[in-house]
Amino acid sequence: MTHGMTHGMTYINVWITECLTDTVKLLVFLTLPLHRDMMMSLDDKGSVQIQTKVLPQDSWTQVSCPCCVSKQVESLVLIQLSDNVQPVTKRWLISLIEASKRHGGAALLAHPGEDECGDVIVVSAPRCTFLKATEDLGLCKKYHNEDMVAFSYHDRDNFSNVDDMQEFLTLAERQYIVKNELDSLQAQKKQRIPGVPEAPGVLEAWENICQKLVRAGVIKDIFPLHDQQRLNDLGRRWYSKKQIWGQPLDAIQSYFGSTVAFYFSFLDFYTWALVPPAFLGLVLTFLLPGGGGVVKEQAVEGVMEDDDDGPSVSGHMVQAVFSMLWSTLFIELWKRRSSSLSHRWGTLNLAERFAGPRPGFQGTLGLNPETGRLEPLFPEWQRQLRVGLVSLPLVGLFMGLVVLGMTGFYRGEALVQGFHQDSGSLFSGALLYLPSMAHIVYTNMLGNVYHAVAMQLTEWENHREESSFQNHHTTKVLLFTFFNNFAVLFHIAFYKQDLPLLRKRLASMLIGNQLMNQCTEVVVPFMVDRFLSAPHKKEQEDDLEMDKLRAQRSLPPFPGLFAEYIELLLQFGYLSLFSCVYPLTAVLLLLNNITEIRGDAYKFCKLFRKPFSAPVSNMGVWQTAFEVLGFVSVMSNCWLLLLSPRVQEFCLEGGISGKNIILFAILVEHVLILVKMILAFMIPDEPDWVRIKREQIEFNSMQALGQQKL
Amino acid sequence: MTHGMTHGMTYINVWITECLTDTVKLLVFLTLPLHRDMMMSLDDKGSVQIQTKVLPQDSWTQVSCPCCVSKQVESLVLIQLSDNVQPVTKRWLISLIEASKRHGGAALLAHPGEDECGDVIVVSAPRCTFLKATEDLGLCKKYHNEDMVAFSYHDRDNFSNVDDMQEFLTLAERQYIVKNELDSLQAQKKQRIPGVPEAPGVLEAWENICQKLVRAGVIKDIFPLHDQQRLNDLGRRWYSKKQIWGQPLDAIQSYFGSTVAFYFSFLDFYTWALVPPAFLGLVLTFLLPGGGGVVKEQAVEGVMEDDDDGPSVSGHMVQAVFSMLWSTLFIELWKRRSSSLSHRWGTLNLAERFAGPRPGFQGTLGLNPETGRLEPLFPEWQRQLRVGLVSLPLVGLFMGLVVLGMTGFYRGEALVQGFHQDSGSLFSGALLYLPSMAHIVYTNMLGNVYHAVAMQLTEWENHREESSFQNHHTTKVLLFTFFNNFAVLFHIAFYKQDLPLLRKRLASMLIGNQLMNQCTEVVVPFMVDRFLSAPHKKEQEDDLEMDKLRAQRSLPPFPGLFAEYIELLLQFGYLSLFSCVYPLTAVLLLLNNITEIRGDAYKFCKLFRKPFSAPVSNMGVWQTAFEVLGFVSVMSNCWLLLLSPRVQEFCLEGGISGKNIILFAILVEHVLILVKMILAFMIPDEPDWVRIKREQIEFNSMQALGQQKL
Repeated sequence: MTHGMTHGMTYINVWITECLTDTVKLLVFLTLPLHRDMMMSLDDKGSVQIQTKVLPQDSWTQVSCPCCVSKQVESLVLIQLSDNVQPVTKRWLISLIEASKRHGGAALLAHPGEDECGDVIVVSAPRCTFLKATEDLGLCKKYHNEDMVAFSYHDRDNFSNVDDMQEFLTLAERQYIVKNELDSLQAQKKQRIPGVPEAPGVLEAWENICQKLVRAGVIKDIFPLHDQQRLNDLGRRWYSKKQIWGQPLDAIQSYFGSTVAFYFSFLDFYTWALVPPAFLGLVLTFLLPGGGGVVKEQAVEGVMEDDDDGPSVSGHMVQAVFSMLWSTLFIELWKRRSSSLSHRWGTLNLAERFAGPRPGFQGTLGLNPETGRLEPLFPEWQRQLRVGLVSLPLVGLFMGLVVLGMTGFYRGEALVQGFHQDSGSLFSGALLYLPSMAHIVYTNMLGNVYHAVAMQLTEWENHREESSFQNHHTTKVLLFTFFNNFAVLFHIAFYKQDLPLLRKRLASMLIGNQLMNQCTEVVVPFMVDRFLSAPHKKEQEDDLEMDKLRAQRSLPPFPGLFAEYIELLLQFGYLSLFSCVYPLTAVLLLLNNITEIRGDAYKFCKLFRKPFSAPVSNMGVWQTAFEVLGFVSVMSNCWLLLLSPRVQEFCLEGGISGKNIILFAILVEHVLILVKMILAFMIPDEPDWVRIKREQIEFNSMQALGQQKL
Repeated sequence: MTHGMTHGMTYINVWITECLTDTVKLLVFLTLPLHRDMMMSLDDKGSVQIQTKVLPQDSWTQVSCPCCVSKQVESLVLIQLSDNVQPVTKRWLISLIEASKRHGGAALLAHPGEDECGDVIVVSAPRCTFLKATEDLGLCKKYHNEDMVAFSYHDRDNFSNVDDMQEFLTLAERQYIVKNELDSLQAQKKQRIPGVPEAPGVLEAWENICQKLVRAGVIKDIFPLHDQQRLNDLGRRWYSKKQIWGQPLDAIQSYFGSTVAFYFSFLDFYTWALVPPAFLGLVLTFLLPGGGGVVKEQAVEGVMEDDDDGPSVSGHMVQAVFSMLWSTLFIELWKRRSSSLSHRWGTLNLAERFAGPRPGFQGTLGLNPETGRLEPLFPEWQRQLRVGLVSLPLVGLFMGLVVLGMTGFYRGEALVQGFHQDSGSLFSGALLYLPSMAHIVYTNMLGNVYHAVAMQLTEWENHREESSFQNHHTTKVLLFTFFNNFAVLFHIAFYKQDLPLLRKRLASMLIGNQLMNQCTEVVVPFMVDRFLSAPHKKEQEDDLEMDKLRAQRSLPPFPGLFAEYIELLLQFGYLSLFSCVYPLTAVLLLLNNITEIRGDAYKFCKLFRKPFSAPVSNMGVWQTAFEVLGFVSVMSNCWLLLLSPRVQEFCLEGGISGKNIILFAILVEHVLILVKMILAFMIPDEPDWVRIKREQIEFNSMQALGQQKL
């Protein structure tokens, strides 16, 4: 086994591990619909009429507030109860849902489905609940003068469309509000849940009711319902053959919520931003005389020392410096785009801090010193201590275990090779595969353990806000995944210092990953949708509305955006950290992303249950991750330049000592980081007009405070 | 001239330059009181009664608002007019000052001094003006429940002490408000200034009146008046012999304002923070066997190679690592202290952004999109462009000129030395001093030009807020001064790589600077105050109140805090950047600062006119400067460790190549910077209770916005 082969194996190990995980998910996904006797009722031709769009209207619970009475109630959220739920429990739950807040209810509308004994409750909300929740969330809505203004219930009549909830709030917002109200249901006093045995059935005072019911097995699922008509419209505008340039971002935001919309906006922005580096890569590879890159690489396969002569080294430098500036500009411009999107979608001024804590939050009951409400409290310094003294070292430990695994693999490889060379038997030949197998198993197990640990740790850190929880959890998983993926490349670049091998590995990882992703994400699901589920579709059209709703439960749950974002982050990592050794990276990524957009769109619309989506004002921790990567890229590029054969040659010729050239490289690195920081500081994070709007809101609230007696 | 001598000369050049500047200032300061026929009416024994604390009360302009009528009006600000001012001009100005805002006035109280023809106007303000300005500034005041709450005029009756302005606002706040109102006087329409010749005497519409009057020579000065009684009280508590530990920070804030109070709080905090490094320095120097440092240094003066043997190198490392961690902790803990002080002093929630622009601000008249007020507007991006494309390169150019000067000096030195060695005449001996002289003149001229350019540039950048103006101006001057001072040390450390020389230079700079500072700042002023001005004091006691007030003009104007802060920053630089080669640095600094506190206190109280002081919530750009220095110190310490003879020896013994040890040092540097960043991130910038208070204010204003129709 050659030197290069060993590295190949590590890479393949990581790759196989990922494939395995993906394949298992795929299998689960493929078999799920077949096990159940119905498939999704989606229809992408738009020609089939949906017969009864709504449930029988008279079975909805009644509203007391005259302004909230409406002829037609929209089904927003489905609560799937267990099969053997007692009618008395269901009645109790419905009465809780419809009770006013003063009486400890959620002030929502409930529909019992076909009858009192069915295993679903459909939930919607009256106008007043929507409006009050909009104010509590801190959403901005269109004022009568077309400005986006933080919504105020008191001043509601001055906002546009305030009488038509379907116009005033997006579908995603309406569903999120319903879920939020359900989540905030708390027991007023210690009580029994009717129809549930004693042991799990006692609610403590202030206990979260939904969480309790899930734990007691009464509620199996709560999920938002797809609106088939809107979904078909959205699909037509998003991934049909006619629609090639651009995405209907506003429609995505309206249907899927801002979390998903921010992902697709970023994907869009990123894809466009890839055009300049892709162009540069093409020029460097094919137009420059003796250009480096793939063409060259294939010609000199295996021959390391005569690689990279001729002027391609200047290409190296151009590429390195360009990619450092590009990554800074990219992130800074995205921040501006992000803040203007946030203004457009009314999430500039969210008030998550002042809302109630997330459902999983633990603490001693007390008065919140900021809002004066009674709720569980947990001191901030204790959380900081937990993060700093427990989570941080544990994450470090797992990183160490990854390195340990890699080292062990290299050791084992060497050992087995030595043994094979000595004995040369069939048995020792078979043994050659042992280290890889062991490494695959190890990596896979480690990954699974880590995911569980990360979730437990983040729960234990006890974050008050959902966004803080998400950010901390994402950071943990992201660090590990990133490390796992890049350990091989860093090992080659910094320890082995072998540029040709790095180039080869980068190219194969890029192409391999992309093929794999395209395959699992687009081709297979498409085939399944076309051929496996097609026969089921016909039957659907005669189904009752209720069955159609319930049918959505057979779709696999939305897996979250983590996998999508991490894919982009890894891409960005390949590009900014190492692309100077393989200029075609950007071209490959560009090609990949163009199909990725449509693939993801198709997947989100067709293949998964609709997710709940909290309003957010940016990408959260992902933006930071991209920014940090930008800084790491300066270090890695400086290092790669230092290693580049041309620079080494230049030193030898010029009689410059290795020591001095390193000192020079450090100087360049520090200066470039300084330049990056100055650039980042000089480019404002939000466009002037957004800043002005934001300050307007602040000024107004300051003014309002002045007008008011406390 | 030896190698060391050359460096000595550069250093002495910079030093002499500074001394020259200081001496000139000192001379001006010393002669000023002698030229005029009276001295300050200060009295530090507190035994002499001030006879008439107030001016004749009936000459104050009358207030229309019934709630503002008070028996006794306090003299706050003095407007010194030119000697030949026309009574008609003075009357016009007084009428403007007393007119209500609706009529384009300042709504203040004016007192014409002795008579209508005198050359002063004393200004005060009625209660309503104070209260409204307090709200506009965004100051927090004590609510009836003892909380600090953003003051609201509408809700004024619920705040403590709202009927007694002397309790409700501090003296510094009252004076700042008066100045602020004077500064905001604008011409309502194009008009002539009565009694002023045509050419300078025409006010354009919306022109700033005070600025115009200063330019037209009508107003010579506007300054706040000392309150002798309070000043004596403050002095007794601050720098008398009894008061050794601690400073009366609240009283300082109340009398001199938060700008000065933040400086002294920082000085205090910094001095205490010096105790651990001073202790470590003492231990390393005197207790460790063979300890490095001064003792050693004096013994081996001039002999470079046998320096630093024995275990003192471990002291090197301990000192370097300690100083890196210490600087991080120091800054992070100061931030917490700073924010709690800011809460205590009610400046947590300042609304400078929403106030009018600073007087020097230029722009086209338009509606401010945030506040809806008519005022000059200037686009933010244009300011950014000016900063980025003009100011930044120009500052860089001047830095280059400093380096050029230093290089030129070294070249000239070498040239002249060669010539002297060749000829050896008396003439060539005299020529030896030429490069130093030339360098002194060059540095001095460059400094003066730069100061003028920095002020012009910052004016031209056209900052809307005073704090932004100050920050940009300070940054420019600070960069230059810092560079000018440290260029020699950096040159020795990074270019010459000569640790023993660095140690010698550091010690002499430290001791020299401190002696110089103590001398100019404390000893001389004290002597002047005791012996030169003592005879004048007696005469004072019989003077009229009006003369006492006018007499304050004979004090030199307050020079600002720049010199004080830069002294601390340079100290901090010596300590954090280079202290590992001279562990006694912290001890020297500690000794210096203990006298510095009292010296500065004495100086501020006795020797200068009282300054206007805007309420501020932190040290502004100085905090950032200290923070940046902390990061630079990691780089410099890693580098110094790399140079340390013991490490070099260790490499030779262990057979580690110079290249690898550098790579290892880079790794250590990057890891340490990462640790520093994590530490800085983990330690919250404000204590929990301050965060809660701040969020309470935000929550209240959000609630208020919800309650109000726009």
